[in-house]
Amino acid sequence: MTYHDTIVALATAQGISAIAVIRLSGDDAIAMVQRVFHGKDLTVQPSHTVHLGTIYDQDKTIDEVLVTIFKEPNSFTKQNAVEISCHGSPLIVKEIIKVLLKQGARLAEPGEFTKRAFLNGRFDLAQAEAVADLINSETDNARQAALNQMRGGFSKEINHLREELIHFASLIELELDFGEEDVEFAKRDDLKKLILEIQGYLRSLIDSFDAGNIIKNGVPTVIAGKPNAGKSTLLNVLLNEEKAIVSDIAGTTRDVIEDEVTMGGINFRFIDTAGLRETHDVVEAMGVERTRDRMKKASLIIYLVDLSNTTEETLRKELADVEVLNIPIIKVGNKMDRADKALMEKLAQEGFVFIAASEKQNIQHLKDTIVSTFHINTVKQGDVLVTNLRHFQNLTQTYDALQRVLEGLASHITGDFLAMDIRQALHYLGEITGTITTDDLLENIFSKFCIGK
Amino acid sequence: MTYHDTIVALATAQGISAIAVIRLSGDDAIAMVQRVFHGKDLTVQPSHTVHLGTIYDQDKTIDEVLVTIFKEPNSFTKQNAVEISCHGSPLIVKEIIKVLLKQGARLAEPGEFTKRAFLNGRFDLAQAEAVADLINSETDNARQAALNQMRGGFSKEINHLREELIHFASLIELELDFGEEDVEFAKRDDLKKLILEIQGYLRSLIDSFDAGNIIKNGVPTVIAGKPNAGKSTLLNVLLNEEKAIVSDIAGTTRDVIEDEVTMGGINFRFIDTAGLRETHDVVEAMGVERTRDRMKKASLIIYLVDLSNTTEETLRKELADVEVLNIPIIKVGNKMDRADKALMEKLAQEGFVFIAASEKQNIQHLKDTIVSTFHINTVKQGDVLVTNLRHFQNLTQTYDALQRVLEGLASHITGDFLAMDIRQALHYLGEITGTITTDDLLENIFSKFCIGK
Repeated sequence: MTYHDTIVALATAQGISAIAVIRLSGDDAIAMVQRVFHGKDLTVQPSHTVHLGTIYDQDKTIDEVLVTIFKEPNSFTKQNAVEISCHGSPLIVKEIIKVLLKQGARLAEPGEFTKRAFLNGRFDLAQAEAVADLINSETDNARQAALNQMRGGFSKEINHLREELIHFASLIELELDFGEEDVEFAKRDDLKKLILEIQGYLRSLIDSFDAGNIIKNGVPTVIAGKPNAGKSTLLNVLLNEEKAIVSDIAGTTRDVIEDEVTMGGINFRFIDTAGLRETHDVVEAMGVERTRDRMKKASLIIYLVDLSNTTEETLRKELADVEVLNIPIIKVGNKMDRADKALMEKLAQEGFVFIAASEKQNIQHLKDTIVSTFHINTVKQGDVLVTNLRHFQNLTQTYDALQRVLEGLASHITGDFLAMDIRQALHYLGEITGTITTDDLLENIFSKFCIGK
Repeated sequence: MTYHDTIVALATAQGISAIAVIRLSGDDAIAMVQRVFHGKDLTVQPSHTVHLGTIYDQDKTIDEVLVTIFKEPNSFTKQNAVEISCHGSPLIVKEIIKVLLKQGARLAEPGEFTKRAFLNGRFDLAQAEAVADLINSETDNARQAALNQMRGGFSKEINHLREELIHFASLIELELDFGEEDVEFAKRDDLKKLILEIQGYLRSLIDSFDAGNIIKNGVPTVIAGKPNAGKSTLLNVLLNEEKAIVSDIAGTTRDVIEDEVTMGGINFRFIDTAGLRETHDVVEAMGVERTRDRMKKASLIIYLVDLSNTTEETLRKELADVEVLNIPIIKVGNKMDRADKALMEKLAQEGFVFIAASEKQNIQHLKDTIVSTFHINTVKQGDVLVTNLRHFQNLTQTYDALQRVLEGLASHITGDFLAMDIRQALHYLGEITGTITTDDLLENIFSKFCIGK
């Protein structure tokens, strides 16, 4: 299950920059670089050391580089590995990779370095998947969840569950060995108790997927309200402030995805309600199925009321129409500077947040309310969250298999049938950490990685 | 002239990738990273070693990283330096830089690492400038010229010239010390001989600028000819083949600049003659000033004739109109498959290249002819070329100052006037390698670098 040929890839982002890093891994990696390197003899240098020299192709010098040596098993892949830090020119990167291909290296497939790390036992499959999540994390909480998973927090939980199940399975299998004699090594009541315990554990992990998924993919959010309530203005205020913060640190600016706002480490993903916003009266539009579907997709509705242009009666009717959807609502009174004071006092007692979007008044208070409505910011380092759909599915399948064991116990079926379902449960759990894998599964996971990782 | 505070910047290209490298330089760089690093004590590790650990911010772990230590003076900047290799997420990069800023680091200005390397005597100014040229090199020859300059080839020539001039100057200055006594330590004939020698040397460097400039910026090239001669088809054939080659190696593809083709390591930059191509008869258009101006800008004209649709007489007339421009012309007969054989034989003797652009016939032969027409491919490793406009200007100014010295010698002016011009010449030469600098000059040079270099 391990590969020994030497793979090579650009590991840093493409483009003109100060430096670029080319990465190699394989039995021959160090010796191969040595063949195109002028400088010290790399093959006799200790692991984790850096050496200045030049990379050449026959009589042509390609670049002055720093070469870092990692000796097996003390590298990311547990193989001999080299990192070549060259000048950040796409042309130079191309030339260096070319000369290494001539020496017998092969271009790495996406995720192939991480795949080798997994195959060589550097970490399990769930940890390997977290590497990709970490690179793609867009919020601090997502980064935190991925980092915990990469460092084995999640795997520890799964392995704990697996051990419990294996203990259970061994008792059942023992009974099968004495099948004819009708002995019971495992008391049925104890078994039931153990399974319920494991199921409770599984349930908490399965339930964490909603929170985990929100952390990874964002909270689907709708800003709703009548036309001219100030919805677009509010969205722009929220978007623009964050854009300014993102571009605060030079050199780290990245494309801001329109209609996504990160607040308190949580990504709020605004669902397009342009149609709703532009052309319909909201209350009327509620009747339209398409709009309702969109609202239903939301995990949060920010309902905006124009305080300068409403009566209490209209407002109650509007809110009733939204509240029936049974989705958390943040009620926001806009244009507070032109509101009826008596009405405001009344609404304040019902948890309304007052803002003036155009004047950017009270926006921070609204943001705090949005974040605290989700309490996601209570996710602490060390908390285990399921963020990966594959893991969620396998956990659910494990739970269901155990449910069948419980039913089997209730109907007093024989041990061999119990054992089948338990083996099934173990299989699903094993796939999460990669104790059980198939080529398809690995292909599917690692093809989503970037090249060089 | 040296800076001791610690600067930090992302050194690799921006974007999601396997890894990103953050670079620090300054007296406190290693100690500073140690304060946010969990792992070995970096401050007691030897230079050029790599250490696995985590970067944290108070109780929050940001990422698992590899940290490389460089101890003064054995780093690029000759200061203590650190490279942090983290997961290639823009968010993680931002968080790590943020925590280092909190520790007292400062965001590096463009080129500030290279500037420190220069100020600390790692290399001279011409070599520092070559670092930026190297990163931006778009062809193999440009890369080669920049690498030679970075490794001191050009500086060696300049320093050699400077030493000769200083020798000359010292003789003159000595005379000034004995000014009253009217002695001549420097024989005027010997002086003249020396200056002519230096000027000859300067001239060869100045003249190399054309070749150097072409290597750096490309050969301005026009494909001319009558409408329907096949100009666009030829350009597309040249462009597309190269595009295919560029995208050969996955992970290194970069934006291909429209209408630039690299052949034999030389960049041929096609000047837009769209108007010419589309709307005018070429021969008629020759009369139009605008078109002529464009043709005059070219260093090379590829003149295309449709062999299936011309007579020798028309062809002679066409060519005569182009030849009068006195620019190197490659005469190309297109649609060779439908040509008159007798005419072809005649034209072959006049150096015509025959192709069939649509059928991609004989294109490689044309390419070879284009390249050999410039003989730029004879630039060998070690050849010194001036590629930098600033150097070109300073060399020209040095030459002119020496010319004034020669004139002074001829008109028997006194030593103090000669000394003035010689000092001027030394000043211009000194600015090239940075023996003489001003803040403005440095600001001007390093502000063109990318951040992190």
